[in-house]
Amino acid sequence: MMSTGENFLSKISSPEDLKKLDPADLVKVSEELRQYIIDAVSHNPGHLGASLGVVELTVALHYVFNTPYDKIIWDVGHQAYGHKILTGRRDRFSTNRKYKGISGFPRMSESDYDAFGTGHSSTSISAALGMAIAARSKGEKRQIIAVIGDGAMTAGQAFEGLNNAGIAKSDLLVILNDNNIAIDPNVGALKEYLLDITTSRTYNRFKDKVWNFLGKVGKLGPDARTLAAQLEAGFKSTILDKSNLFEGMNFRYFGPIDGHDVLHLTKVLEDLKRIPGPKLLHCLTVKGKGFRQAEENQTVFHAPGKFDKNTGELITAREQTPSYNEIFGKSILELARMNDKIVGITPAMPTGCSLCIMMKELPDRTFDVGIAEQHAVTFSAGLATQGMIPYCNIYSSFLQRAYDQVIHDVALQNLHVIFCVDRGGLVGSDGATHHGFFDIAFMRSIPNIVVTAPMDAIELRNMMYTAQLEKNRRPFSIRYPKGNSHIPDWQKPFEEIPVGKARLISDGDNVAVLSIGHPGNDVAEVVKKLEKEGITVTHWDMRFAAPLDSEALHSVFRKFSKIITVEDGVLRGGFGSAVIEFMCDNGYNSRVTRLGIPDYFVEHGSQEELYKECGFDSDSIEKTIRENLK
Amino acid sequence: MMSTGENFLSKISSPEDLKKLDPADLVKVSEELRQYIIDAVSHNPGHLGASLGVVELTVALHYVFNTPYDKIIWDVGHQAYGHKILTGRRDRFSTNRKYKGISGFPRMSESDYDAFGTGHSSTSISAALGMAIAARSKGEKRQIIAVIGDGAMTAGQAFEGLNNAGIAKSDLLVILNDNNIAIDPNVGALKEYLLDITTSRTYNRFKDKVWNFLGKVGKLGPDARTLAAQLEAGFKSTILDKSNLFEGMNFRYFGPIDGHDVLHLTKVLEDLKRIPGPKLLHCLTVKGKGFRQAEENQTVFHAPGKFDKNTGELITAREQTPSYNEIFGKSILELARMNDKIVGITPAMPTGCSLCIMMKELPDRTFDVGIAEQHAVTFSAGLATQGMIPYCNIYSSFLQRAYDQVIHDVALQNLHVIFCVDRGGLVGSDGATHHGFFDIAFMRSIPNIVVTAPMDAIELRNMMYTAQLEKNRRPFSIRYPKGNSHIPDWQKPFEEIPVGKARLISDGDNVAVLSIGHPGNDVAEVVKKLEKEGITVTHWDMRFAAPLDSEALHSVFRKFSKIITVEDGVLRGGFGSAVIEFMCDNGYNSRVTRLGIPDYFVEHGSQEELYKECGFDSDSIEKTIRENLK
Repeated sequence: MMSTGENFLSKISSPEDLKKLDPADLVKVSEELRQYIIDAVSHNPGHLGASLGVVELTVALHYVFNTPYDKIIWDVGHQAYGHKILTGRRDRFSTNRKYKGISGFPRMSESDYDAFGTGHSSTSISAALGMAIAARSKGEKRQIIAVIGDGAMTAGQAFEGLNNAGIAKSDLLVILNDNNIAIDPNVGALKEYLLDITTSRTYNRFKDKVWNFLGKVGKLGPDARTLAAQLEAGFKSTILDKSNLFEGMNFRYFGPIDGHDVLHLTKVLEDLKRIPGPKLLHCLTVKGKGFRQAEENQTVFHAPGKFDKNTGELITAREQTPSYNEIFGKSILELARMNDKIVGITPAMPTGCSLCIMMKELPDRTFDVGIAEQHAVTFSAGLATQGMIPYCNIYSSFLQRAYDQVIHDVALQNLHVIFCVDRGGLVGSDGATHHGFFDIAFMRSIPNIVVTAPMDAIELRNMMYTAQLEKNRRPFSIRYPKGNSHIPDWQKPFEEIPVGKARLISDGDNVAVLSIGHPGNDVAEVVKKLEKEGITVTHWDMRFAAPLDSEALHSVFRKFSKIITVEDGVLRGGFGSAVIEFMCDNGYNSRVTRLGIPDYFVEHGSQEELYKECGFDSDSIEKTIRENLK
Repeated sequence: MMSTGENFLSKISSPEDLKKLDPADLVKVSEELRQYIIDAVSHNPGHLGASLGVVELTVALHYVFNTPYDKIIWDVGHQAYGHKILTGRRDRFSTNRKYKGISGFPRMSESDYDAFGTGHSSTSISAALGMAIAARSKGEKRQIIAVIGDGAMTAGQAFEGLNNAGIAKSDLLVILNDNNIAIDPNVGALKEYLLDITTSRTYNRFKDKVWNFLGKVGKLGPDARTLAAQLEAGFKSTILDKSNLFEGMNFRYFGPIDGHDVLHLTKVLEDLKRIPGPKLLHCLTVKGKGFRQAEENQTVFHAPGKFDKNTGELITAREQTPSYNEIFGKSILELARMNDKIVGITPAMPTGCSLCIMMKELPDRTFDVGIAEQHAVTFSAGLATQGMIPYCNIYSSFLQRAYDQVIHDVALQNLHVIFCVDRGGLVGSDGATHHGFFDIAFMRSIPNIVVTAPMDAIELRNMMYTAQLEKNRRPFSIRYPKGNSHIPDWQKPFEEIPVGKARLISDGDNVAVLSIGHPGNDVAEVVKKLEKEGITVTHWDMRFAAPLDSEALHSVFRKFSKIITVEDGVLRGGFGSAVIEFMCDNGYNSRVTRLGIPDYFVEHGSQEELYKECGFDSDSIEKTIRENLK
């Protein structure tokens, strides 16, 4: 390691500055960049491990390629911190993931260097191919590079992209950033395959052996020599071309190489520049590279929150109440112990959704299927046909990936699959790509599905209990937000919630508020506050977006001419729309004010900031109630 | 060919009857089954080619396996006619695809032999894995077989299923029905790969050569013999295990074998029964096998309509008006000639959506990406980042597969991708899996997208023209139904339609009807009829579900206390909901009656029958108008 004390990073305002350096200096640049990321993320939380793993790759790419004319597409995008810092956003990096600050993911609107916005995995090859085809059609000699992890490679879309790129004869470089981990350790046959071509090196050893052997055979005379030549040709066409899955898809395969050797990387990338057609460079990297604690505990340091940059100790705020995902995780284990038909499914989020709790105790009944939401849902449907009761846990924004499977494989066949839709509503600092905006709207359009959003921890538990009851043998969706429930003492005995029945939180006369899900807690608080002024509000925790509680709604529409709905989902087609559909269909004509997420893509920030911006925080709820008193 | 005159098929009421026959009789059974399908489909239209291609496979599967205890999952399912005929539905087969008749696809609710309902491609491996895991967990020795075509294998979900099955160590047989065609010829690197392992047989030839060679080397003494043994071991572990893409995914690969040799098939399947773990049998078949015209023109005979079973001549009803897809196909070519940024994208439906018209003339600017809707959308997004204007044509029900990509890759980045959503609304005899129910609801929830449904051929053309104008540089969705426009003389010069502007079809006083899309034609007809009685109706062709024409809506809500909305999409969250959202948000309180698709999965039948059932056919519209006059 060099220790010249010279600071390169502070002089790099764009890749142009990087290109002025000697290749030998890149080692130092990488070191500084790594330290910069660790410093920044230690006090301003974000994704750590992924960016540390691609420091050298980031430096090498911007050194070798002519960005932003050449296009780098960072799959998923949480590994792009180094890229952001090198492309003119070092000074703004302290605002990373903060309200009105820069995004934790590449955004086309943020920088010309962000060639394509990402957030959800496995889109990079498809987007890169589009750019490559566009370049070809415009006669531009542009290099297009997609950087994709081995985790993201397991999603079907990556395969669809490879399959198409392999015949499109476009110039395209896919860099497989193979660190053998997604957020949790990567799973699936592909992972084993990559490990095999990397570590056992059977193929290379075998090739060497045959090469030597051919040398000996050469002594046997002309016939043998001809045969040897044929063998060699056969080898090339058969083993070299077809032994590799990527070569099977018409990609030229290079590697595996060490993704932390920045000098070698620059040389290889220089070479690859001159090779036309679709090609794949297999880089081996270590997630969290260069920060011991992150290397040793990759899942925790994927996005660790605040930590001590020297000791790696996590600085966690003391939580009084448990997170919704923890409640899911502990409750499914309890239920699974009671009902042996229950199984748990997650597409690559065992830790994030807390299915890991059940996984530890009942490994045969929990399934991490990799980043593969479509498969996760149809796999669950298959299980359900045989009488199993799958709890399929998918984050709201990722459920968008499996919309067709929810409709076609589960709902249409009326199968008993229980969707646990985590991260519903506004997720905060992950921002626009990760908010769970749409689920209530797109799920309630589908026939047969029970669509629920519990208001608190106890309701989540009871909904999970209710969903598995034999009498509720139908598709069931339970959505809950990122963050914590308000109830510390939640581990009560399970109680059934009648399907389609709302819960009256408070009975009043001035106005009615119908809420669904967690924002009901803010409503309840506001209602209590207003009571002190003598304003009484009828507040229903509606619980179900489908089927609606028609009895409760009839009582509300009969009594109130002014009604407010509150939800943390899109207003277009969401829960509030269900309420006004009911109103119209039943001939009522109250004045309904709907609070929820308006018609634009909300960006990142704290959940509080975003609730306020959207207008369904406590203050907005109070204001709306007061306006409806007039 | 045998010609004993003996009729086997009429005696087969279930696979039990089939199992009583001698293996030698299966050839005759296959022959009869094939003829039965040709006869039936010639006068009652349906899918022909796919079922003809798997006649022998169907007979062999039911002969060898213990269905319905063993599970056969037919991917896509349009090839399951033989399966239906052999499993107790021969007598009802004349009702295939008819209203209240049996479905053209497997349906769990129709028969215990239909292990999993299909319709959309590439779900079979996921579902089969779910069943295999369930069997394992229940200690059942059940055989699970997924039959999937090479076309369906290109979709990402199939890969996700393979990737998961490869590590799940479950007993699962995937039969790759490789006929080298989807509906149109299959595309992509995988297709080339399959062709290569099938036809060039490099691998097999090479293996033989080395085997012989090792024989010679054996004469060289003990060292050489050791080396030879090592070589053989190396061969097995390297070439056999890794030379094959499927073996790379931990599947044992068998084949390719002739999928029309029913006797050999039964033997191979018997053998495979006894081999545990995930395995893949590669069968080569001919789509349309046994019916010359269908073999020669596979795309036409995929679903040919009525035809002469002797001559193969198509019996087409004379169409006075063109189909919507034809209008799309001709119009995009016209537009592409005018604007060189325009490109066309289809996921495997060039003929069905008529992009083939442009493909013929401008092959470099049209892209059939295979069955890969997710990729199709993100690929389009990539093209749009570089200033191209992609028209991405996807059937409504298949767009559900790419919902996340529409949101995350196109809408969030506000890219100029034009979605042409074919087969919107009720598609008729294909039924529940293929209706385009949901698109208006799920598209209008997304910010930034213009969501339109033209009422007729000319409006479709003009919408396509409008969408590519520089000033409308944003995501744009144009949805239209299966079937024909009412306008024969449609090829008029292009005219711009102002975005968000509705069209007043008739001005009246008694009631207002707001329609979107093709059903507006029925409304217009009814309105004309009522005019003769002195009933005058204001009828707006709203054109846009987003953005709504607020000027038109204000005028309607100011004037009318009774309003009817008409659409061929789901009522929950659809266009009518958008109208009542507008009403509530703007403080109106008219009585709105919404006509559209109610909250259940509508089955198959003619479009007329289904419109009537749903209650938005002409009669229902007239009745609703009359009711609103009171």
